[in-house]
Amino acid sequence: MTGELPMRFRDDALPPRVRIHEVGPRDGLQNEPSRVPVAVKAEFIHRLADAGLTTIEATSFVRPDLVPQLADAAELMPLLGDLGERGVRLPVLVPNERGLERALALGVREVAVFASVTESFARANLNRTVDESLTLFEPVVSRALRAEVPVRGYLSMCFGDPWEGRVPADRVVRVALRLLELGCAELSLGDTIGVATPGHVASLLSALKDAGIPATKLAVHFHDTYGQALSNTLTALRHGVTTVDASAGGLGGCPFAKSATGNLATEDLLWMLQGLGIDTGVDLRRLAATSDWLAAHLGRPSPSRTVRALSHKES
Amino acid sequence: MTGELPMRFRDDALPPRVRIHEVGPRDGLQNEPSRVPVAVKAEFIHRLADAGLTTIEATSFVRPDLVPQLADAAELMPLLGDLGERGVRLPVLVPNERGLERALALGVREVAVFASVTESFARANLNRTVDESLTLFEPVVSRALRAEVPVRGYLSMCFGDPWEGRVPADRVVRVALRLLELGCAELSLGDTIGVATPGHVASLLSALKDAGIPATKLAVHFHDTYGQALSNTLTALRHGVTTVDASAGGLGGCPFAKSATGNLATEDLLWMLQGLGIDTGVDLRRLAATSDWLAAHLGRPSPSRTVRALSHKES
Repeated sequence: MTGELPMRFRDDALPPRVRIHEVGPRDGLQNEPSRVPVAVKAEFIHRLADAGLTTIEATSFVRPDLVPQLADAAELMPLLGDLGERGVRLPVLVPNERGLERALALGVREVAVFASVTESFARANLNRTVDESLTLFEPVVSRALRAEVPVRGYLSMCFGDPWEGRVPADRVVRVALRLLELGCAELSLGDTIGVATPGHVASLLSALKDAGIPATKLAVHFHDTYGQALSNTLTALRHGVTTVDASAGGLGGCPFAKSATGNLATEDLLWMLQGLGIDTGVDLRRLAATSDWLAAHLGRPSPSRTVRALSHKES
Repeated sequence: MTGELPMRFRDDALPPRVRIHEVGPRDGLQNEPSRVPVAVKAEFIHRLADAGLTTIEATSFVRPDLVPQLADAAELMPLLGDLGERGVRLPVLVPNERGLERALALGVREVAVFASVTESFARANLNRTVDESLTLFEPVVSRALRAEVPVRGYLSMCFGDPWEGRVPADRVVRVALRLLELGCAELSLGDTIGVATPGHVASLLSALKDAGIPATKLAVHFHDTYGQALSNTLTALRHGVTTVDASAGGLGGCPFAKSATGNLATEDLLWMLQGLGIDTGVDLRRLAATSDWLAAHLGRPSPSRTVRALSHKES
C-alpha cells in the first residue's frame, strides 16, 4: 500500500488534541461473567499504557458481592505502581467513603463517583433518590479533596432512561452543577442506554454551557447500543469537549440495558481522530493488538469494527 | 416509557428531508453465500416498500455466473410490478449494454452503472482500465437515456483502495465529471473499503463542489468496516448531500475486502435522522422487523446495532 490509511484532514472547528479516558478495565470488564485473573487485568492495563493511553480507569472499590469481577481491586492496584511513576493516571471508582478509604490506603491518586440523573436509575442502582445520592457523595468528595485526590463525577442516563424515556436537559444541568459545587474536577456525561443522537448532544452541551459549565470540565461517555456513539462524539468535539471516554475493543455494556453492545470502542474512536489529524498519543495498531489479546482471554471476538478489520488484515 | 426515544432536536445546518436509497436487496444480498429464494427477495422488497422506502435497488443484471445470488433478476422483476405502480423506484444495476437490454425488456425504469475510481479496482473488478470502463458505459448510458431511463453512476473506492491505499480527490473528480458528461443523473460516492473519516468526506465534497458538481447530484455510500459510516454520513449531510445509500439490517459487504462488516445499516441511519428531526418517510420499527424477518431466513442476526437493540426490547 502506497500510503497509510486513514488519510488525514484537519478540521479547524475541532480540537487539535483529545485526551482519551480509557474505561475498559473498569466499565468494560465489570459485567464480564467469568472472572478475569488479576494478572491478566494488570497486563491489560500495562499494555494499554504501552499503547500510549495516559488515563486508564483501573477498577472500582465497590462491595465485592455487588461487582464480583472487580472484587480484586486491592490486589490489582499494587501491581500497577510502576505506571503511576511513569505518569499514567489510574483513577478508580468509589461508591462511598468506605470505598474511598480503601482506595486511598492503596495509594490511589484519582477517584470517580457515579451519580444518576434520573430518579428511576438512582433507585435501581443506588437504592436512593437523586438528592440522597448526591448528599452521600458530599463527604466522599471532601475527604478526597483533603487528600489532594481529584474527583471525577459520572452522570448516568443523561440522554434517556429505560424506565422514564426522555430525560430533560435541566435535570442533567441540576446534577452537574451540584457535583461541581461538591468539588468534582471533571464531569462525564453518560448515555447509559445509548439513545442519544447528535442534535441531542448539541442541545445538552449548550444547556450546560448556558448554566456556566465550560466544555473543558466535561467528558462524554457514549454507548453504541444504536450505533450512534461515534457521531455523538464527533458532535461533542465540535462543541469544545476534549475528553472522551472509550473502552478498548468496545468492551462492556450496561447491566440495566442488556441489549447494549457496549461502550464506544477506543479503536473506532482512534480511527476517526487519526483521520481528523487529532492528536491522542495512542498507537492504534498496538491498542488493537491488545484488544485482540484480551478477546482471546475472554473467548470471543471484540465487537469493535476497527479491531476486527485490522485483525483480519494482519492475519 | 413516558416519551418516545430518540428525542428530536432539529439542526438548521442539516437538510429537513433525506431520501434513502435502499441497497439491501442488491448490494446487501449479492455476496450472500446461500441462495435466497426469489419469493423471499420479492417479499423482502415489498416489506421495505411497506416500511416507507421509496427507492429500492432491486437487483443486478450481471452475468449469472459472476453473481449467482442475483441470477434470478429476470424472475424477480415481474414480481414487483405493483410497486412500480405505487410509485416506488426500483433501480437495477447493469454492467453493460446486454444487461441494460435485458432490464429494459422487463420494464425497468431506472438503472445504475458501477465505475471504479482506481486502476487497481477497475482491473480487479472489471478487467479494464478506468478509461476503458468509462468508454464501455457510454453506449449504456445513451441507450438508457433514449429509453427515458435515468442512470445512477456508482463510483467505487472514492476514499481508499485495498491495493493503492490513498486515493487523491482529483481522481474522484475526474471520474465524476466524466459520468455526468455521459449523462448520469446522480452519482453515488462509495467508500468501498470503509476507510473514510469525516474530514476526508468534507474534503472530497468540497473538491467536487469546486469542480462544479452540486451536492444535489450526489449520494453517499459508506461502509462500516471501521465503524465510521454514520459519522461520515452526518458530515455529508452538513455539506448539503440529501441522498444516502443504506442497507436494511446492515446486510452486505465487499467481496474484495472480506473484513468489511457491510453497508451502513438503514436502521442505524434512521435512528440518527429521527433524532435530528429529519424526515425520511420510513417507519423505523417496521423496517427493523423486516430485517429481523430476513435475518431469520439467512440464519444469523443482523449486524445492525439498532435492529438488535429494538429486537431485544420487543422480545
